[in-house]
Amino acid sequence: MAKKNKKSLFNLKKKKFNKKNHKKKQQQDCYCLGLGPKMINSINIALKEGDDIHVRKIVEGLSEYELADLIEVLDIGSRKKLIEILGDRINPEVFPELNNVVQEQVIETLEEPQLVKIANELDSDDVVEILEHMDEDEQHHIIEQLSPDLKYQVQSSLSYPEDSAGRLMTREFVSMPDDWTVKDAKEFLLRNEELPEDFYDIFLTDTKYHPTGQIALDKLLRAKPNQRLSDIMDGEVVPIDVDTDQEEVAHMFREYGWMSAMVVDKRGHLVGVITIDDVVNVIHEEVSEDIMHLSGTEEGDVYRSVFSIFKSRIVWLVTNLFATIIAASVVKGFQEIIAQISVLAVLMPIVASMGGTTGNQTLAVVVRALATKELTSHNTLRVIGKEFMVGLFNGMLFAFLIAVITHFWFPEHQMISVIIAVAMLINLTIASLAGILIPLLLNRLKVDPAVASGVFLIAITDSGGFFIFLGLAKLLLF
Amino acid sequence: MAKKNKKSLFNLKKKKFNKKNHKKKQQQDCYCLGLGPKMINSINIALKEGDDIHVRKIVEGLSEYELADLIEVLDIGSRKKLIEILGDRINPEVFPELNNVVQEQVIETLEEPQLVKIANELDSDDVVEILEHMDEDEQHHIIEQLSPDLKYQVQSSLSYPEDSAGRLMTREFVSMPDDWTVKDAKEFLLRNEELPEDFYDIFLTDTKYHPTGQIALDKLLRAKPNQRLSDIMDGEVVPIDVDTDQEEVAHMFREYGWMSAMVVDKRGHLVGVITIDDVVNVIHEEVSEDIMHLSGTEEGDVYRSVFSIFKSRIVWLVTNLFATIIAASVVKGFQEIIAQISVLAVLMPIVASMGGTTGNQTLAVVVRALATKELTSHNTLRVIGKEFMVGLFNGMLFAFLIAVITHFWFPEHQMISVIIAVAMLINLTIASLAGILIPLLLNRLKVDPAVASGVFLIAITDSGGFFIFLGLAKLLLF
Repeated sequence: MAKKNKKSLFNLKKKKFNKKNHKKKQQQDCYCLGLGPKMINSINIALKEGDDIHVRKIVEGLSEYELADLIEVLDIGSRKKLIEILGDRINPEVFPELNNVVQEQVIETLEEPQLVKIANELDSDDVVEILEHMDEDEQHHIIEQLSPDLKYQVQSSLSYPEDSAGRLMTREFVSMPDDWTVKDAKEFLLRNEELPEDFYDIFLTDTKYHPTGQIALDKLLRAKPNQRLSDIMDGEVVPIDVDTDQEEVAHMFREYGWMSAMVVDKRGHLVGVITIDDVVNVIHEEVSEDIMHLSGTEEGDVYRSVFSIFKSRIVWLVTNLFATIIAASVVKGFQEIIAQISVLAVLMPIVASMGGTTGNQTLAVVVRALATKELTSHNTLRVIGKEFMVGLFNGMLFAFLIAVITHFWFPEHQMISVIIAVAMLINLTIASLAGILIPLLLNRLKVDPAVASGVFLIAITDSGGFFIFLGLAKLLLF
Repeated sequence: MAKKNKKSLFNLKKKKFNKKNHKKKQQQDCYCLGLGPKMINSINIALKEGDDIHVRKIVEGLSEYELADLIEVLDIGSRKKLIEILGDRINPEVFPELNNVVQEQVIETLEEPQLVKIANELDSDDVVEILEHMDEDEQHHIIEQLSPDLKYQVQSSLSYPEDSAGRLMTREFVSMPDDWTVKDAKEFLLRNEELPEDFYDIFLTDTKYHPTGQIALDKLLRAKPNQRLSDIMDGEVVPIDVDTDQEEVAHMFREYGWMSAMVVDKRGHLVGVITIDDVVNVIHEEVSEDIMHLSGTEEGDVYRSVFSIFKSRIVWLVTNLFATIIAASVVKGFQEIIAQISVLAVLMPIVASMGGTTGNQTLAVVVRALATKELTSHNTLRVIGKEFMVGLFNGMLFAFLIAVITHFWFPEHQMISVIIAVAMLINLTIASLAGILIPLLLNRLKVDPAVASGVFLIAITDSGGFFIFLGLAKLLLF
């Protein structure tokens, strides 16, 4: 079955489930296909009772999508038990369908010989994905046991850096010399038994194997037999370098609406093809990463164990602890005046928090604009200027609002209305500037701005807010 | 030019720029193609000097990608001037390439007759995108002046809800009865002059126009002439309902690795086709929206005016102001004990801030998991349990850390180490729970959890943190 469904050029996973399943699916809140609560319940019971035969029987009829969904939906313990029971009898096509985190857990559960058997049934890109989770020793062991063809493909893919075009591309594509005729091409397609199972374009090269153009199959179908391919091809080609980062590749696809692109090595030879369906996953991963990084978490927490989630979140929390301790030290410097006018302690968190919120708004915009390359050398200065103005305007608005509120809330402390208003104005303006300057600086230092900006920002807006508010109070009230 | 490049089934934007441009591009940090800083400079000068002829001359040779990039890179004032100078001589193909925000600004600058002229050169999906920015009256005016074919297509597209499959699909696709032979099909493709310019699949229906399968062109090319289409087609079809939300559509494409899908109306008739390149944009938009919503901003702020950005961020800041005022009110209730032990004011922001950070981590994970449908009725309870445990463990770890820090920082207040530790434990646990329960609740109430969760969370973690810490202090120290 795996062989038959083997994915090819377009990595195309065909629609496997029927209309009946589809109906069922729409009534549920998840994409569990035929998996009703009943079924999940019965497999859980069978797993708990150690009834391996019953487990295998339930799983038997499931498609790779359904089995992948089932594995994902189980808790970690049951997940491992299920994999142990299935062993290498698990349909290899299930692996590419699994969430990354779950895939790693499943791989850890399997023995090396089982993994080799499964890997030998998969496409090279899926094998590479599996190997990426392992350390080099384990990788090496498995690669040595792959079939020669697969071994070569996997090794050459792994020779390119992670997240590069070289890793993303497929080596299974249809290419021809551009001086063939349409008739030559059609005959080649009819006679050649080793073509990828699905392909939508034919890629053309000169005699030195430099890419010169491509032809979509519909053009070929409708062309006259004696026409030269070079006469009907789309010849304006932008080859992608094997080392290009996948985020860059995704950006080019989106920017120019490509369906496919040719990848060349350092000598300019055609070595692979990237198609839009590969790019869909890249876009999804990269943007999700940004969201997670902005709040100091990782993808796939839904599937992780408590301890693994706990560990992954500590770094962020510890750095945040430092940031807040710095802010607290600022407050400590004003302990005496707080003891005398405790209203200051009531109002100071407002200034700090509004600063943090303002800065975070700018931060989110800038991190995204950097990722989508909307922020370039041409407009950086202008955008900094705009964010400064927005911070200033927001500062003025909220200075006014908080002054009025404080005036009525603490009528016995008239001067504090003025102090909090000025502090708000200054802190919100600083926060806006920090929200754009911090990610820009980190980006220049080649640090992912989504990962590290937040902590610096909070350190500035909290400490800054406390310092300005309490400092002004000390200056004006004592 | 516009006519020639008219996009078709696959909405394919061909590679227009040559290798020279590509080289240049790679040296820059932006995708401005041939647009060097020199060129941008000279157009800015020409715009400032009102030298319309020179402006037109500079712009003349640019491709639609280059012109779109140029328009995006200018500031708002110059952008409008450029559009006024170009008027309806602007290449219509530029419009689909523009960022949404910029597109709206450009449309506002153009007169109605200019817009009609431009719209008549575009594909229906691009026209619909332009019309979506307008109010109904304006929409109606423009639609009435479109060519009959386009008018019909635009009207039927607009009859479906925004962000639905009906809006996303194209009406230009190749379909045939499934009882035709391969020979029939090939002859039809050769003889028919009105086919879309690019297509990769042929969609098959029965005599009642219900979808029954599809054939990729490579299969057709390699099939024997007398085979029936129904014998070689991929017959396991999941038709998408016209009313399906585009986020749902994108999810199905990603989940099942589709390249295309058929869309049916309420009677089950094939009315359109969605292809993967349409889905790329949807994925990008929806995920970006989530990031922006989580921090209370909107997409495209890079291109907006200061006042427009300022306005768009106010709502979020005002709600945050309320949240912090609630927290401040909590502190106000403990004013007297703060006046007596001002160390409390120094330490209280730490408890609140750590709660906020912990809660935000959970929030980001849950909002994403809801969007990607990883959080379903099958695992919600388990994930809640896990987040509770993670919060508890983090609470214990940071309770210990802060107790030690406080012990050495304020050796004269031994009891406060205990108090802050307990407060930290409780607040971090509550924060984790709030981080999952708030978005789940909002989701159930059909409110977008990305938009509204943050404010509720901050209200709980700030107020909660202050209340627990100061309340414990009052209980134990007085």
